[in-house]
Parts: sequence; C-alpha cells; structure tokens
Amino acid sequence: MDEASCKYHMIGGDGPNSYAHNSVYQKELIVSAEDLTNQLINSHLDTNKPPFDPRNTFRIADLGCSVGPNTFFAVENIIKSVENKYKKSNRTTQNPNINHQTPEFQVFFNDLVNNDFNTLFKNNLHTSKKSYFIAGVPGSFHSRLFPKESIHFAHCSTALHWLSRIPEEVRESGSMAWNKGRVHYFGAREEVKEVYSVRYKKDMDDFLSFRARELVDGGLMVMVVLGFPDGVVASESSMGVAFGVLGSCFEDLAKMGKISGEKVDSFNLPFYYPSPSELKALIEANGMFDIVRIAKLAAPMRVKPDPRIVTAHLRAVIGELIEEHFGSNGISIDELFKLHLQKVTNSPELFDEEYWKETNYFVFLKRK
Amino acid sequence: MDEASCKYHMIGGDGPNSYAHNSVYQKELIVSAEDLTNQLINSHLDTNKPPFDPRNTFRIADLGCSVGPNTFFAVENIIKSVENKYKKSNRTTQNPNINHQTPEFQVFFNDLVNNDFNTLFKNNLHTSKKSYFIAGVPGSFHSRLFPKESIHFAHCSTALHWLSRIPEEVRESGSMAWNKGRVHYFGAREEVKEVYSVRYKKDMDDFLSFRARELVDGGLMVMVVLGFPDGVVASESSMGVAFGVLGSCFEDLAKMGKISGEKVDSFNLPFYYPSPSELKALIEANGMFDIVRIAKLAAPMRVKPDPRIVTAHLRAVIGELIEEHFGSNGISIDELFKLHLQKVTNSPELFDEEYWKETNYFVFLKRK
Repeated sequence: MDEASCKYHMIGGDGPNSYAHNSVYQKELIVSAEDLTNQLINSHLDTNKPPFDPRNTFRIADLGCSVGPNTFFAVENIIKSVENKYKKSNRTTQNPNINHQTPEFQVFFNDLVNNDFNTLFKNNLHTSKKSYFIAGVPGSFHSRLFPKESIHFAHCSTALHWLSRIPEEVRESGSMAWNKGRVHYFGAREEVKEVYSVRYKKDMDDFLSFRARELVDGGLMVMVVLGFPDGVVASESSMGVAFGVLGSCFEDLAKMGKISGEKVDSFNLPFYYPSPSELKALIEANGMFDIVRIAKLAAPMRVKPDPRIVTAHLRAVIGELIEEHFGSNGISIDELFKLHLQKVTNSPELFDEEYWKETNYFVFLKRK
Repeated sequence: MDEASCKYHMIGGDGPNSYAHNSVYQKELIVSAEDLTNQLINSHLDTNKPPFDPRNTFRIADLGCSVGPNTFFAVENIIKSVENKYKKSNRTTQNPNINHQTPEFQVFFNDLVNNDFNTLFKNNLHTSKKSYFIAGVPGSFHSRLFPKESIHFAHCSTALHWLSRIPEEVRESGSMAWNKGRVHYFGAREEVKEVYSVRYKKDMDDFLSFRARELVDGGLMVMVVLGFPDGVVASESSMGVAFGVLGSCFEDLAKMGKISGEKVDSFNLPFYYPSPSELKALIEANGMFDIVRIAKLAAPMRVKPDPRIVTAHLRAVIGELIEEHFGSNGISIDELFKLHLQKVTNSPELFDEEYWKETNYFVFLKRK
C-alpha cells in the first residue's frame, strides 16, 4: 500500500457533503456505459474457456468503488449481462455434459484504506438485490490487490484520473516544473504537464500490469476514463475554469492571511486527464490487453448545471485532500467552499456549452 | 443478513473502551490454540487433493473477526502452518510434474455489518506482515457468506456463543420460559435454559451447514468455543457471578428510576455456553464434518485478575448491545459500568479459583 495514496478518498457517511449524495454525475456515466457493457460482454465473454466454467465462482472487482450506490448499479449490470450470456450459451449448446447453469458471483469492492467501508457495507445491505456475495478490499489499485488469475471481470469508473502521488518536481522551487501559484497543470508551463504525464504513464502501466496478473485468461475489464479529446486546450474547458476558480479561492484566503501562502504554493491536485490517443498508446505499450473498444461517452449533466452542485461535487471529491494538505486547523473548509460557490456563480464560462470539453472515454479490454 | 443479529458487535475504534484494547483474554486463547492448530494442519491438510493444488489461491476465512489485532495473529499462524505443510510435501515429492511451491493466500475477515471494518483495515495495514491478500466480508455467520467450495480453511474463535437472536419466549410474560428479573439463563428456570439451548442448536446447525457448503472438499475448520465442562452448574461460575452482578446493576438503576423496569425485564444476553458432549452431539447430528479433535484449552488470564479489566472487557463486548436495547437516551452506560466496577470489586467469588469453571474448547473439523 502506497502511503502517499492513502490520503485520497471520497467523503464518507451520508451527510450533505458526502460522496454518496454528490455523485449524480458518476451515476449518469455508469448508465451511459451500461449498454456498451452489455453488448460487449455478449460478444467477448468466452464462456467456453476453462476459467469461465459455470461451476466456478465468477469474481468481479470494482476498483475505486467509493461508498455506493453507483458501484452497486455498475456491478449489478455486469452480473445481469454475464448471466444473460451464460443463459444464451446454454440455449445454444447441444452437449448434455455441459452444465446448464449460471455461476455464483462474488464482488470485490475496492478503494483506498481510508474509504468509508462501513458506509459502503451498510449501503449495500439496504440497496442491493443481494444476488451475489460481497467483500471489501482496501488498498491502492496501483498495487496488487487480488491473488493471481482470480478475477473474471474488473471495472473501474472515473477513478483512474487519480494519480498515485503528486509528482515531486511541482513542489520543488529549483525545478523547471515548479508549479507556484497554480493547483494543477492546466494552463501551467509545459514542464509541469510533462511531469504529471510521466507519473500518469507509470501509474497506468502499473495498473494494467497488476490487473493483467489478477485477471483470468480471457478476463475482461471496463474502464471509464475522464480525459479531453486530442488537441483540446484543457485550461479552456469548464474543468480548467473550475480549477482556476479553486486556485483563486486559495489565493484570496492567503491574501486575507487565513492560510499559509507556502502551503498554497505546494498544493497540487493529483489528477491527470489523458486524450484518447494517449490512452490507446499507453495500453498498447503495456501490451497485456487487447483493446476491444474505446468510445466517447455522451456527456452527462449538461442540462442546466446548478452552481451549488458544481461546488458540492468538488467538495465531496477533494475536501479531504485539502484538509490533509492544510491541516484541519489550517483551513476552514466551509469558508473555502462558500467562496468557491460565489465565484462559480459568477463564472458564466462554467455554464457555457463551448467550455464543456472534458469527455469520458469508455474502454473495454480483454486480457491477452 | 438477519436483521436481529445486525445489532451485535464489538465496540470499534481504538478508544479506552474499544474491543481492540480489551481483548487480551481472546489473544491468550489464540496463542494456546496455535500449537494444536499447527500440529493438526500438518497431519490433516491434504495437499494432494485437487482443491489444494498450490497453483490455486488458498482462501482462509476468519468468522467473527472483530477489528484486530487478534484475528491477524490467528490467520498468520494458520498461513505459516499451511506454508510449512506445503514445503514439507514438496520435499518429500519425487514427481517432477508437481510444482514445488506454496499457494498465494487470500484472507476473508468476516463480522456483522455493524462491525468497524474501517478500523480493522487500518489495523491490518499497520500490524500485519502483508504476506496475504485481504478482504472484509460483512454479514452474519448464521447465513451464507461465501461462494460454494471457495474456502480452504475457516477459523472462528470465541464468537459462537453469540446467538443469532434472543429466543422470543424469554420476553413473553405468558411463557413458561419468561425470564423476568434475570439477564441470562444462568440460575433461571430449566425452561429458560431449554429455549436458549434450542436456539443454539439451530444456530450451530446452520453455521455448520453453511460452512460445509463454502468449504472445499477436505477443507478444515477450527472453532474455539466457550462453554462449561459437563455437569458444571454455570450459575456457580465466575461468569455466572459476573452476569448476576450485571443483573443487579440493572435492578439498582431501575429502583433509582434511572431506567425502565420493563426494559430491564426484557433484556437478555444472547449468549449460550455448551458443554463438550453437547457440542460433540451437535456436530455429529449435523453430519457434515469429521471431528478430528475436541480439546480443552488451558484457561487464560487466571493470574491476578484486575476488576477494571473484568468490567472493561464486559463493556467492550456488550456495551453496544445494552445501548441498542435501552436506547442511547434510556441509559447512561458510564454510570452502569461504574456501578458494575464497584460491585465486581466487592465480589470475591470472581477472583476465587473455585469459581473459574468456564472453559474454552478447541474443535478441529474436516469437511466430509
């Protein structure tokens, strides 16, 4: 378990600032990925291969699951699709020796050790259909999580933009990649983006290699990856504007003497957003998976965005990260996000379609 | 998941009243069970059976694990013993086609959904040697928890005295088994013990049947079961005295008008303590397991018991149960256990060896 990455997790519980109550965006993405998942499971799940014998348990992992309920919708859709595929295979089989049955399912919900697994388990008890056995697995998906060849299907939705750690260079005043005055590589010098990109490449390569070891022969993986189309200047996107707004909130609080200027300079968001061609090149360079499909998903939540939702969503995702960096006495999170909401309300670009450039890519892989 | 049983769990976190800080007794038991476990794994783990092929993951479940660290000591001892057995099997094998290797291990830590899994995972991160993959599994061990034939070794230490629910009859004023004025069957009418015993038989039968379904062919199970030797009158044991003390604390608080007398009458501890012959008969009646060994474990913590430890231990185990029954506004837990400590200090029988009759039985089973 990588110590640095232990810090990053969604806000737990079910309060107004919790991830559980601020993850509608992610939910819509899962729904738009569902049809593709169904269709590709039907075409690419090879139920005749030995690891897919229906007498074996079919094991599913959701990586970066948070606390639900989105993770339950996602895995229950996968289970439904896999069951359908088994039923079809049975119908078309004439061999009386093949068991006409579907396997038992076991789902591993994974997230960092600081994730609120207690809430996850309670949410599962109350919302899921319980047609499967569950387990929670704490740990970074940038490390090994499961025994070799033990997972049949891995799923990872809108989590892979989290880096395992911030590139060191962006905090070093002597470095060409020093990122003083910004919270992210958007709009920064090329050197800053470069060190973020190097970190992302290493993280994705680790992620793919570990999953390849854990998946059975013919195992499938769906990733929903947040990125930008090739050629887009990310700082001129609504996400770029939102990160700029966050940076200017920190600046204001530092000017007011409410937080340390040095702390502001050393704060950087651990997110990287690849382009589809970058992603494709990374997967091919890793070499462990066949790319079955990379598709752009329809953009969710593009109708009448509410500034309160924009702020609440950001708070749910990075609130703890900020507290971790500044110390719980070093910053008033409420004050920060009050200021953020004011600025978001006064940032028309955030609500201008031309700025909506961030895109979710659906990636369907098959282990070689 | 049985709703009634959701309520029972140890006190989480790592505060002074937590289970993590008040489970020395359980720790000593695990140590005294270690040698027997090592020895019997060596004699009875059949590494030549197909489910034990070292290329497969070796899966261990600890049932009723609480938050650690005892569960880690227990499973790490099992892993060490299993590894030794594999190494020995390799040494004596002349067949070059058999892989000279030990399997990968995956450990499932199970407890009720209200158990503090967040603390469990953090404790594991900080204390374990991490030679195995981990997963947390919420749910009652009186229900199915794992896919069929997926577990190689199950372990359950000092948890099986917890009933899945209180027998209804003990709360019914019209019933012969109504247990007015007592918190347990110790010292009560025979009818009270009888309904507790019926519940225990059903619970154990479920437990054994579910585990038999989940264990692989030749799978092993260790249970450490708290009980009393055949013929012992449990009310005349230190545990009997301790429960009597608890009952008299409730009575005092009711007399002082601090808690409802009706609530006191309906409070009963969900514990049952079998004798070894009762246990043996239950396992044989179930029929799913061969009994490899039933042995009495040396009694732990018999040197200079401290009244504060007696009270703190009881509070860690049943604090939440009491709060659940009386409501968090209906009782001051601090006041109750302050009174308890006073009475324990003035109960010399609790520190008199003649009263130490409760006994832990080590049970080693092999799935038929």
